[in-house]
Amino acid sequence: MDKIRTIAVLLFNGVNILDVAGPIQAFKTANRFGRDLYSLSFVSTDGTPREACCGLRLETDHICEDDELDDLIVPGGDGVDAAMGDPDIQHLVKNWIAQRKGRRVISVCSGALILANAGVLNGKSATTHWRRSELVVRKFPDVNWAVNEIYRIDGDIYTSAGVTSGIDLALEIIRRDNGPELALSVARELVVYFKRSGGQNQFAEVLEAQFVNDPAIARLMAAFQQNPGTDWSLESMSDVAGLTPRTLSRRCVEKVGFTPAKTLERFRLKLAKIALENGVDVPRSIEISGFSDFQMMQRAFKRHLGTTVGEYRNKFADVH
Amino acid sequence: MDKIRTIAVLLFNGVNILDVAGPIQAFKTANRFGRDLYSLSFVSTDGTPREACCGLRLETDHICEDDELDDLIVPGGDGVDAAMGDPDIQHLVKNWIAQRKGRRVISVCSGALILANAGVLNGKSATTHWRRSELVVRKFPDVNWAVNEIYRIDGDIYTSAGVTSGIDLALEIIRRDNGPELALSVARELVVYFKRSGGQNQFAEVLEAQFVNDPAIARLMAAFQQNPGTDWSLESMSDVAGLTPRTLSRRCVEKVGFTPAKTLERFRLKLAKIALENGVDVPRSIEISGFSDFQMMQRAFKRHLGTTVGEYRNKFADVH
Repeated sequence: MDKIRTIAVLLFNGVNILDVAGPIQAFKTANRFGRDLYSLSFVSTDGTPREACCGLRLETDHICEDDELDDLIVPGGDGVDAAMGDPDIQHLVKNWIAQRKGRRVISVCSGALILANAGVLNGKSATTHWRRSELVVRKFPDVNWAVNEIYRIDGDIYTSAGVTSGIDLALEIIRRDNGPELALSVARELVVYFKRSGGQNQFAEVLEAQFVNDPAIARLMAAFQQNPGTDWSLESMSDVAGLTPRTLSRRCVEKVGFTPAKTLERFRLKLAKIALENGVDVPRSIEISGFSDFQMMQRAFKRHLGTTVGEYRNKFADVH
Repeated sequence: MDKIRTIAVLLFNGVNILDVAGPIQAFKTANRFGRDLYSLSFVSTDGTPREACCGLRLETDHICEDDELDDLIVPGGDGVDAAMGDPDIQHLVKNWIAQRKGRRVISVCSGALILANAGVLNGKSATTHWRRSELVVRKFPDVNWAVNEIYRIDGDIYTSAGVTSGIDLALEIIRRDNGPELALSVARELVVYFKRSGGQNQFAEVLEAQFVNDPAIARLMAAFQQNPGTDWSLESMSDVAGLTPRTLSRRCVEKVGFTPAKTLERFRLKLAKIALENGVDVPRSIEISGFSDFQMMQRAFKRHLGTTVGEYRNKFADVH
């Protein structure tokens, strides 16, 4: 980079302070390892203080329409819903990139909803916090949501997933601007991994398929629950559901989003996750979850969670 | 827990905002999943605003000697050195636990230095940011430093390692106070791992042994650098250093902190790390670093970094 990049961090009431702190501390730390690379301003639409959702009160500077700042960081938090209805914020976000070339808009967590609401994500690819994934797909269908991604970059639009993913995205921006060595130094200084393995889905709850609003499918789910280890075939699943195989397949995709076989696999995966999280060992977890063997369980973890059984256990298991 | 736990977060000029935001957002998020468990206050010794090292200005409340708060969080940051010389802060930290039973002192990152300086870590075990590890061992010899730990709990004293480790410690506190299920929910909400594999050392630079101030050892290091893959014996190392095996061993431990064989292993480890970080594949990294085979390299990663070659590559390698 040939000049200091000036970054405006938009603050609003109910902002998640960790969404704010992660990226800005990464950019700030990048300055320690070289000349000044990033300059930060903390702004609001009127320059008065804002209260983060943790209760911390933050002073702000007023951001003007014609501020000569390069990038705009839009964090998330409980206050996002109110911020989506704030015309000044919407105006700012909507016009940021249009006003001047070379600008970037960077969202963290549910901050992506503010961007989506302003229309700047239409036709673009973006991510957000896994908890908001159903909502955004429904509410903003013109956005190509990639909610399993820890971050997503599409042209001038940089979005990151839940909360701490803002650090991952900031590291990637530093890498692109200044090379991998600096990004790695910053990661070490912050004591975070430079690159995390697996997508955001490993942090999300597996789809609560058993609460699906369809009696036939619910019956099948209850049968899975009772006998996850049964060697289920499409025929035996159809029998339990009281549907033809063809109808079961169609309705399962419609209601649950997956074929019957895939739904069973995801159900087993959920049982395995819960077992591992509670400190159950791997052989017993295979038994509890109904996978036929370790290979089947491993494959499901890799396919759906982007991680291995061993890694998942290391990260989430309550073993001391 | 039978009552709300009240937590004071001590703010000072030059505080690292991510040290602050990590734990408080974890405690705040814990409230979302049940009744109110934690109440947070942001305090300073005089109640005036403080400026974080990123430039963010934070409003504070005045903390009084007899405040009925339970826990005190002491973050780190560039301002720690000044805070160590602040008599009001020293007084507050020194008396926190003595004043009332059941209180906890929780430090993040270099915040441990404020605790150490106030004498509350004497005879206790504690951790801090890896970059400060040499300094603290020298400056506070009465503390049992465990700087490879991501966090350390010793009685009422809770210390965490660099920056984001404050989140790991907060999750552990939530687990102890309210059980693993809640802690796991908070981790998922923040999109962080509940438990990280490996210690803090994997984030630190391997000791820069080759810059040691001893011509004989430096000669040996230069020889390692030129031929890391040589089948070095104590005899051949002694020849290069121009010392007897006995003198080399003694002086190597004295200057570098390790035996000659261990020093060689750590040197090879460093070369392997650099190779992997730069996207070099594993077979070539073994070759570059001079390990005799994959098993030797794997063993060194496990022993010194608490992680595997594969995990290290996943986390740090710049492969896209």
